[in-house]
Amino acid sequence: MMRTRPLKVALLGCGVVGSEVARIMTTHSEDLAARIGAPVELAGVAVRRPSKVRAGIDQALVTTDATALVKRGDIDVVVEVIGGIEPARTLITTAFEHGASVVSANKALIAQDGEALHAAAEQHGRDLYYEAAVAGAIPLIRPLRESLAGDKVNRVLGIVNGTTNFILDKMDSTGAGYQEALDEATALGYAEADPTADVEGFDAAAKAAILAGIAFHTRVRLDDVYREGMTEVTAADFASAKRMGCTIKLLAICERAADGESVTARVHPAMIPLSHPLASVREAYNAVFVEAEAAGQLMFYGPGAGGAPTASAVLGDLVAVCRNKLGEATGPGDSAYTRLPVSSMGAVVTRYHISLDVADKPGVLAQVATVFAEHGVSIDTVRQTGKDGEASLVVVTHRAPDAALTGTVEALRRLDTVRGVASIMRVEGE
Amino acid sequence: MMRTRPLKVALLGCGVVGSEVARIMTTHSEDLAARIGAPVELAGVAVRRPSKVRAGIDQALVTTDATALVKRGDIDVVVEVIGGIEPARTLITTAFEHGASVVSANKALIAQDGEALHAAAEQHGRDLYYEAAVAGAIPLIRPLRESLAGDKVNRVLGIVNGTTNFILDKMDSTGAGYQEALDEATALGYAEADPTADVEGFDAAAKAAILAGIAFHTRVRLDDVYREGMTEVTAADFASAKRMGCTIKLLAICERAADGESVTARVHPAMIPLSHPLASVREAYNAVFVEAEAAGQLMFYGPGAGGAPTASAVLGDLVAVCRNKLGEATGPGDSAYTRLPVSSMGAVVTRYHISLDVADKPGVLAQVATVFAEHGVSIDTVRQTGKDGEASLVVVTHRAPDAALTGTVEALRRLDTVRGVASIMRVEGE
Repeated sequence: MMRTRPLKVALLGCGVVGSEVARIMTTHSEDLAARIGAPVELAGVAVRRPSKVRAGIDQALVTTDATALVKRGDIDVVVEVIGGIEPARTLITTAFEHGASVVSANKALIAQDGEALHAAAEQHGRDLYYEAAVAGAIPLIRPLRESLAGDKVNRVLGIVNGTTNFILDKMDSTGAGYQEALDEATALGYAEADPTADVEGFDAAAKAAILAGIAFHTRVRLDDVYREGMTEVTAADFASAKRMGCTIKLLAICERAADGESVTARVHPAMIPLSHPLASVREAYNAVFVEAEAAGQLMFYGPGAGGAPTASAVLGDLVAVCRNKLGEATGPGDSAYTRLPVSSMGAVVTRYHISLDVADKPGVLAQVATVFAEHGVSIDTVRQTGKDGEASLVVVTHRAPDAALTGTVEALRRLDTVRGVASIMRVEGE
Repeated sequence: MMRTRPLKVALLGCGVVGSEVARIMTTHSEDLAARIGAPVELAGVAVRRPSKVRAGIDQALVTTDATALVKRGDIDVVVEVIGGIEPARTLITTAFEHGASVVSANKALIAQDGEALHAAAEQHGRDLYYEAAVAGAIPLIRPLRESLAGDKVNRVLGIVNGTTNFILDKMDSTGAGYQEALDEATALGYAEADPTADVEGFDAAAKAAILAGIAFHTRVRLDDVYREGMTEVTAADFASAKRMGCTIKLLAICERAADGESVTARVHPAMIPLSHPLASVREAYNAVFVEAEAAGQLMFYGPGAGGAPTASAVLGDLVAVCRNKLGEATGPGDSAYTRLPVSSMGAVVTRYHISLDVADKPGVLAQVATVFAEHGVSIDTVRQTGKDGEASLVVVTHRAPDAALTGTVEALRRLDTVRGVASIMRVEGE
C-alpha cells in the first residue's frame, strides 16, 4: 500500500513552531508515513538567520531564499510558520503556482487575505489548511468546516487568546490589578514585551474573523470585527462580576442575528456566569463554545499557543494535505456561499453591567432610570451605594441593542448628577 | 461549480435519529447542496413498520425491504441508524458491494466488527464514517483521526454515556442514592426501561473500544475492554469523594502503557478531582479529555445523545462522504498499523480509594498496612473512624498495578479483623 517516493515538505520559518514541526517530522517519521500512506521528507527550511544552530536540522536544508524554495517545483507541501502579511502572502501564492499545497499557522494573513488565498489555491487545484491559525492545538477549523457541515451554527463564543486569559485569570484568582497581572504574565513568558496585539484584542479579532467566516459560510473581514481590549478591566470590575455570580473573560463572539439574515463578530471583555463552561477555563488555556441548531452546545478546550501544540495542529493539516495529494484530491475549501452581511456593533443585542459615579442626593436614581427608559433599555437590577458624600450606581440591563446602550451612556454623561461612567461591561453566555 | 444530478441517500431506520436526519435533509437541502457541491436527495427509507406516519417523509420512499434498497445500485450513500448487529452488518456490506458508501451511528456494530467492515469498505473503494457512534454530536472521531494525525495520543479519558452521568450528577448534587437517581433519570427519559446497557457500562465499553483503536492506531476489540458498571456506587462513596476534593464519574479510559508497547481500555466508576475539567460535566452531557504528546490536554464537550445532536454528526459525515464521492476519492480509513497489544486490567497502573469495615481494636491498622506492603501497594493516606464498636478504615494508595491491588484486597478479605470491603474505587485524572 505504501508509496516509497517521499512527499516533499518545505518549511518556511524555523522559530518556536517551525523547529517543533521539524523535530516531530524527524522523530515520528514512521508514524507520519503510516498515516499518510507515503513517507514525508523535509526538503528545505527557509530562515532569516542561517547561522543560527538548529538542533536536529540538516544544515544543508537551510536556506535564506524562501522564494527559490517554494519555486523549486518538486515541493508537495509548503508549511508557512513565519507569520505576518509579507513575505508570507507572496510565498504562499507562489507555492500554489509551483505545484504545492500550503499549511499555514498565520492568523493575521488568513483573516486579512483568506478570500484571495483560497481563490488562488482553488485556481491551481491546491489545498490551503490553517487549523493552527486559531486556538493552537484545539481542533476547531476542521470540526466547524467538516463535522458541523450538516448543521447550522448560530453562535461561537470563545476564549481564543491565552495571554489575556492568563492575565484575567490572575486578576480573578488573586485580586491583582491589570498591570500587576500583566507583569506576571510577562515574567512567565505568557505575554510578549509589547503585549499590544494580545491585550488590545487584535489577535483575538483575527481569529474571530476566521471563525465567523467558517461558522456562517460567509466572508468576515478583519475590519468587520468590533474590537475592544481588556487593559481597562479593573479589580473593581471583578468584584462587581463576583457579586453577579460571574467572572470576566476576553471573548470572541460570532453570532447569527435572530432573523438569520446577518451576522456579527466582536471581541471585548465580558462578564459570564460562573456556571458557564468557559468560566472555568484557567491560565493560558483556550476554549471555544459553539452553538449549533441540531448539535446543541459544544465546547472545544485546550492549549491555544506554544510551539508543540501549534506544531500538532500544523502536522494534522500536513497529514491531511499529503493524503489529498496522494489521492489527487483536494479537501473542503472556502465556503462563503451564504454571503450574509456583517452588521456593525450597534446591531448586537446583549445585556450590560454599568457602574456610574453619581452625586449622593435624592432623585438621581429617578433621573438615571429615565435616561435608560428614553433609550428603550430596560433595567433588570440597580444597586446603589453611598459613602462619604460620593455614591455609585450599578445598573444591569435586560437585553438591548448595543446602539441603544451607547445612546444611553452618552445621555448619562450629559447629566449633571452623573460624575462619571466608571465601567461598562457586556454580560454574555446566559 | 454545482453538479445538478443529485447524490442519492438511502436511510436505514427512521426512529429518533433517522427522522431527524430526514427532516434536516429536507429543511436544509440548499445548505447541504452548497456545502457538498451537488444536491443530495433522500431516495429511500427502510423501516420496520411502514404504516407509522412520519411527518415530512414522502410515503412513496418508505419500504420494509432494506436489502432491496441497498442493492438498488443508484444509491450513493447509505445512512444506517437502525443499530444492533444484524441486519445492520449485512446491509452495510451489501451497500459497499452495490456502490454505496456508508454513514453509521452504530457503536455496537463498529466496536464488534469495525475491522471487517473497514476491510469491506476498502475492498470496494467506499467510505465508512461513524462520528455519531461515539458521544453523539461531539466531534471526536474526526479530530482523533484527522486533527491529531500528526501527533501521538497517550490517553483518552471520557464521559461517554449521558444516562450514567445524569445519575451520578444527581447523586452528587442531591445526595440521592443510586436507585432514587436512576428513577429520576427514567422518569425524565434519560434512562431506558431496561438501563442495563448504560449502567453496566456496555455502551461506554463499545465507545472505549472504538476510541482506543482510533487514538492508538491499533485494534481494540470489545472483549479487550475491562468493564465495571456503576450500580454499586453509593451516597457514602460520594461523601468519601468529597472529602478527597473529588467527584465520581463513570469513565472510559484508554491509555498507552508507560513503555509505549501496549495499550489498555477500561470503563469503570472513578473518583476525579473537582479541578479536573471532566468533573464539571453536568447532567447528560458527554466530554472526552485527550492527552497527546505535542498538543497537550484537549477536551471535547457536548450532548452525547438525542435525535438532533446525533443527526448533526450523521449529516457532517454525510457531507464529507458525498464530497469524497464527487471527488472520486475516499477519506481516511482504518488505521491499525501499530498493532499494539491490549493488556488486561491487571496491567493498569492507577491510584485506589478503599473503604474497609474493620474490628475496632488495637493493631488492626498495622495488620492492614502490612497486607498492602506485602503486595507492593504503597499507602498515601489512611483515615480511621470508630463508632459504636464498629470502625472503618479508608485507605488511599499511591499508583500501583491493578493486579497488585486485587491481590491486596483478596488478602484483606482473609483477615479476621476485616469485616468487609465496603468499596474500592479508582482515582483518576490527577
